[in-house]
Order: sequence, then C-alpha cells, then structure tokens
Amino acid sequence: MSGPPVGPGPEQPPAPPEVRRARAWLSRAVEPGNVALWRFVEREGPVAAATSLRSGVAPARVQALVGPRADEDVSGADLRRAERLGARLVCPEDQEWPALPLHALALAVAAEPADGAPATDRTQALVPPVALWVRGEPRLDDLVDRSVALVGSRASTAYGEHVAGELAHGLGERGWTVLSGGAYGIDAAAHRGALAAGAPTVVVLACGVDRVYPVAHSTLFARVLDDGLLVSEWPPGCAPLRHRFLVRNRLIAGLTRGTVVVEAAARSGAQATANRAHRLGKAVMAVPGPVTSAMSVGCHELLREREKDVTLVATAAHVVDRVGGIGTDLAERAATPTTPRDSLSDVARRVLDACPVRTGVPPERLAAVAGCDVVDVLRVLPALELADLVQWTGTGWRLHRGG
Amino acid sequence: MSGPPVGPGPEQPPAPPEVRRARAWLSRAVEPGNVALWRFVEREGPVAAATSLRSGVAPARVQALVGPRADEDVSGADLRRAERLGARLVCPEDQEWPALPLHALALAVAAEPADGAPATDRTQALVPPVALWVRGEPRLDDLVDRSVALVGSRASTAYGEHVAGELAHGLGERGWTVLSGGAYGIDAAAHRGALAAGAPTVVVLACGVDRVYPVAHSTLFARVLDDGLLVSEWPPGCAPLRHRFLVRNRLIAGLTRGTVVVEAAARSGAQATANRAHRLGKAVMAVPGPVTSAMSVGCHELLREREKDVTLVATAAHVVDRVGGIGTDLAERAATPTTPRDSLSDVARRVLDACPVRTGVPPERLAAVAGCDVVDVLRVLPALELADLVQWTGTGWRLHRGG
Repeated sequence: MSGPPVGPGPEQPPAPPEVRRARAWLSRAVEPGNVALWRFVEREGPVAAATSLRSGVAPARVQALVGPRADEDVSGADLRRAERLGARLVCPEDQEWPALPLHALALAVAAEPADGAPATDRTQALVPPVALWVRGEPRLDDLVDRSVALVGSRASTAYGEHVAGELAHGLGERGWTVLSGGAYGIDAAAHRGALAAGAPTVVVLACGVDRVYPVAHSTLFARVLDDGLLVSEWPPGCAPLRHRFLVRNRLIAGLTRGTVVVEAAARSGAQATANRAHRLGKAVMAVPGPVTSAMSVGCHELLREREKDVTLVATAAHVVDRVGGIGTDLAERAATPTTPRDSLSDVARRVLDACPVRTGVPPERLAAVAGCDVVDVLRVLPALELADLVQWTGTGWRLHRGG
Repeated sequence: MSGPPVGPGPEQPPAPPEVRRARAWLSRAVEPGNVALWRFVEREGPVAAATSLRSGVAPARVQALVGPRADEDVSGADLRRAERLGARLVCPEDQEWPALPLHALALAVAAEPADGAPATDRTQALVPPVALWVRGEPRLDDLVDRSVALVGSRASTAYGEHVAGELAHGLGERGWTVLSGGAYGIDAAAHRGALAAGAPTVVVLACGVDRVYPVAHSTLFARVLDDGLLVSEWPPGCAPLRHRFLVRNRLIAGLTRGTVVVEAAARSGAQATANRAHRLGKAVMAVPGPVTSAMSVGCHELLREREKDVTLVATAAHVVDRVGGIGTDLAERAATPTTPRDSLSDVARRVLDACPVRTGVPPERLAAVAGCDVVDVLRVLPALELADLVQWTGTGWRLHRGG
C-alpha cells in the first residue's frame, strides 16, 4: 500500500476471508484516522496486527488505542449485517481498492510524525483508511477514477445550491463522478445535480453505511444507491459523531482528483477539506460569489492564498480543465465577439470616428477631424465602404445607416 | 523623462512659456498616444519639435502625423481657454508632473517598435503623454501618488455599483485617491463612493476638460471639482471620439499604483485597462461576483489568468494590502472565530462527543463509545468540566446545558 500504485492484475483473487475479518475488526476497534495504528497494520499485516491487539500484546502505544474494545469481536456480525444491506468491506488487498487516488494518502502519511513523537491531531492526520465499507452496486475504483469532490456549507444560499447543482450536472454529463458528503446544503445540491444528469455519485459518510444522516436524506441516498455508492470507514451502526466528520473529510479529498469549494464561510469544514486536498497534491478549486455574501468569504479567502494554487472555477468546463488530462479536456475561454471595427487600422478607426451620422462631409473635413492626411483618408475609405461602415451620399461621406 | 524618476527639487521653476506653448500645440496637432511623435519630442525637445513640424521640415514619418494641422495654431487660445475654466497644462518640465507613476510608461515605451517598423496600433501603445490638461485645485502629483483605478462596465449591475461604491469609500477613508473614467456604471459609482467619504477623486477624460461627457454627469463632475481633478490629454473643446477612450485607458493604468476591475463582461474596455496595468508592472485586481452574472465573467477570466498575477479583492483592505507599502497596509484575514472545542485534544474531543445530552453516564460507558481507555476518560474529564463543556449529574457525565 505504501509502494507505488501498481494496479493488481485482472487475475487477482479477493482478499482472503481472514484478512477481511481482521480489517473489519480493526475498523471498529480503533477510531479511523490513526497514524500509529495504520503503521502497525502495515508492518505486521492485518491478521497479525488484529491478533496481537486482541491478545493485549501489541506495543503499548498501539494497544492503548484499542482500550476495552480489545475484548469485543463483532466483526463477523458486522460483515453479515453489511451483506444483508447490499454492502461489503473493500480491503487494500481487493482489486476494487482505489489504490491510485489513495496513493496520495499513502505518500502523505510518511510525513506524519514518527511513532513515539507527540501525536498529531488525529482529525488532521493524512493517513489511508484501513478498509472501506461500501454500499451499492458499482465498483468503487471505477467510480472514483474520474471523480471530483464538490463541498461546501450546510447553511448554503440559493445561489450556492444553484451553482453546485449546475457544476455537478455538467460534470455528470462529461462522465465525471461527483463525490461529496451527505449533508444539507451544497452536498445535497451536488448529488441532486449529478443525479439529474443521470450520472452516479458517491456519498462519503461519517457513520455506518446503514445509517441515513440526516434522516431527511433517505430518499436522496436511495436515489444515490440506484447507480452510485455510499462509502464509510466506520462499520454498520456507527453514529455520525462530530469528530468523525473531520476525519472523514480527508477521504473526500483523498478519493478524488480535486476538490471544489462551492460556498464556505470564513471558518468552515469545506476549507479544511480544501487544505487537505492541497496537502495531498490534489487540485483545489473555488467558486466565487458576491463579495457581499458571508457564504462566499471562505471561497474568496482560498482564492487569495496564492501559495495554494487555488483555481477559480465558474463552470463544469473550468473544473474539467483543471482535473482532466492534459490536452484532452481544455475549457474554452469566454467568448469574445469580434466586430468589423476590430480589424481596422488606427487611421481607419479615426476616420470612421470622424464620419458624421447624417450629412455627408468631404474627405478634407474627415482629415481635419481625424488628425491625419487627406491621402490617408482616401486610402482607407474604400475599405470602410466595403465593410458597410461608411457610405457616399453623393456630396460626402457619412456613417452607413445599418452599419 | 525617460531617465529615472528623480523628483525635481522644490526650487524648480515652472516650464518656460515657450515650452508650455509648444506642448499645447503638440497636444492638438497629433492625436495622443503616438510613439513616433513622443520619441521625436524627446529627441528634439518640445520647442524644436513643434517648430520643425510647423515648418514642414520634420522627418516624413512624423510630419505625416500632423497633416493639414501643421498650418493651424490655436495653442495660445487653448491655454487662455483653459485658464478661464480654472484649468492648466501640466508639462513634464513642471514640478506638478506625476513623474513617478508615469515612469512605468516611459520604461514601457522603450519596448515599442522602433521608428520605421510597422506602427503598433496607437490605441494599444504604451507611451507617456506629451502633456496633461488638468482642471481643479489640487496638485496632480499629490493626488495620484497614492491612487488606485476602479474600472468596470458602463452596463453594470446594482451589485457592481454597490461594491464599486463600497471599495471607493473604504479607499477614500484610508487616504487613497480613486481614479476612474467619467462613464456611467462602475466609473460613476466609484467617484460617488469616494466623494461620500469626503475624499478627492480624479476623472481621466477622453475629451477636453471643459466638456461634460456624458452630459448627465455635470453634477457629478462639479462635485469632483470641489476637491479633485479632471484630467485629459486632449485640449479644451475636443470631442469624446470612440478611439480616444482606448488611448485614454493607458493613462488610467499608468497614473495609479494598481487597477481594480469591479465588473466586466467577457469583452470589455475594463479588461483592456487591466491588461495595460499588467504590462506596466502595476497591480491588477478583480472583484468576483456571481458566476451567473455576465457582468462578472470578465473579472473571473482575469482571475483565471495565472500569468497575470491578478489578485482577488473583496474589500478596500484587500486593495490596500496589494498596492500599499510592504508591512504598513496589510489586510487582516477573514475572522476565524475559535471555540473551546478547538483547543481540545483528540481524546478529549472524542469523550465530549460521547457525552449524552440528557442522562449522565459513567466514565466506563464514555470510554466504550469514544473508543479509548477509561484512564484517558478520567484524565480529560476535569478539563472538559472546567471549560463548562460537560457536567456531573450525581450519577454520571453529560453535556453541560449552556455549553
């Protein structure tokens, strides 16, 4: 897992049952997001790691993480419960594991303080998941391969929800998967926009994949499950505790190619997710809004932080321009209409400006107003006439009526 | 003028009358913005340059610029007319000449094609003015020393006008001069905002300083003249011909420390002014707006052009942060309120999340929910209680009612 993300061959068998069982146990025994635990599992392997933790013989620092949970084992029940839900535990040993996007987390964890050093805040640590509980039909790695996170405030404005929906719809139409949390506001608007385009979405939860939080989103999650996925690090039944959202946010950044902050207040979880995306070397994007809106302050602050290389995005094409393949998905610049005036020389433009609207005037008069020689005026008049910009009245030149 | 911008000493006399007369003549004889004319005046001096042009003995390329105007001389009348208006011609030989800001134009003109090469479009050329007609009391160099250009669409929205007014008001309060054109929309809103703060503003016109264009702005210009200035390269009486606005725009960029584009459509003069500010090495700033507004598309496109180093600005403080002195005028970041939760350790946060709202529970139960050791729970509870986050009910721990 910490090696290069070489995809397993197509023949690779799924993770052995004892590995899946061990990872299921680990996912409940220790709160996800812990660097020391992840390193211990990497070093010992999941089966040996789980065995020594359950026997109480793991190194003290890691053993302390498990505490009284060492004596519990509901991993078999968790896996059966998942199966009844139409869910599964995806392990790093499985072909479905999204090794390529998560490679950024595997690289980042190397920069986290070594075991024994004062622990970093677990909610901030960049560490891969031990396993992922996944509910829904499609393969996780397929769906997240070309995915973008749309994140933002729960207390969003109508503007923010409109833009989130439009961006998600456009990304869905272009074959990109929208990934987000399951909260009110921007999260929900993003899922709805993508679903309206008939595109699958991924909801990354901070609770078990059997729980609907918030409850009002039961219909939305059901629609997501038609073609998309619910994903979580926590086993079935786990509650959406507040600290879990912070830990979850690194996965939203980690599973995608880039994160778009649609609306965010000055202090917000969406900004935290964007910061993690930046630390993971993923694209960070922000949608601007009225400077009079408190819900756009976080986006504008991100766009002002030059060192983070945050891209302003206003359309789905802008997003694809940033996260898509080089040379394949480039956004067009805003249309800049051209007029016949644009191709005129400086003298021609001055002569045109000198032409009256109504009464025709002789070239000498045009030369005096335009501040150039009569020869110049006579030289440019034919071109202006051909372009239907000026006309000859019989006694002089004036602007063309329809020009 | 093309040398370093060493300010003249306080003893410097004003430009001699024959120099002023020559520059007055040149400002009417050749359309401003011409590189060849400016270089000829630089080489020969204004008096000799005017004399040879009037005698028809200047090099053919320069002589052609004057055309039939060589025979006219209303410079004396122009200067008298200006005097009657309360206006004057400010020459590079005068102490009032804004040599420091205009130095950028003097440097840029060196990069323009040499005489004899195919002429650049005069409306795009970066060339210093030959002289400036100035109407109003204050010294031009004083007013533009700490000035910012606020530019934008004439077809502005209520949002754009509101923001232009707010930015200008804030800049005025901070002792900065707002400089803009005199058009409807963003220009007018900027002047009004600064005037409301009791701050002087500068209107840079594309016609004579005796003309009010648009006519509806006669009251606005009169208010500007109470403490500020009207400035133009064109002598009194000259009409606001269309091509003159393009030539004028380089002065808006050139006289200020930076240009803020408040609202701009995809193709707009405001963007052109911003591009010139960039070419002059001056700060370029843009105000974001709703991505659904056509009048913000130009601003967003500017902010997406990374090579131009365009800064997103939402407040006057942001503008001063960009154009002000290093270390003197820094903008504060958006306020990020902190809560008692922020300072909690990971374990403390988990224990807090595990506390029920109503019924108190024993530490053992908290440890099980939080996934940590009872010892850890007992260690963090006193701090949580001191912070009024949890309380002891007599039988167990729960969240503090007011916490």
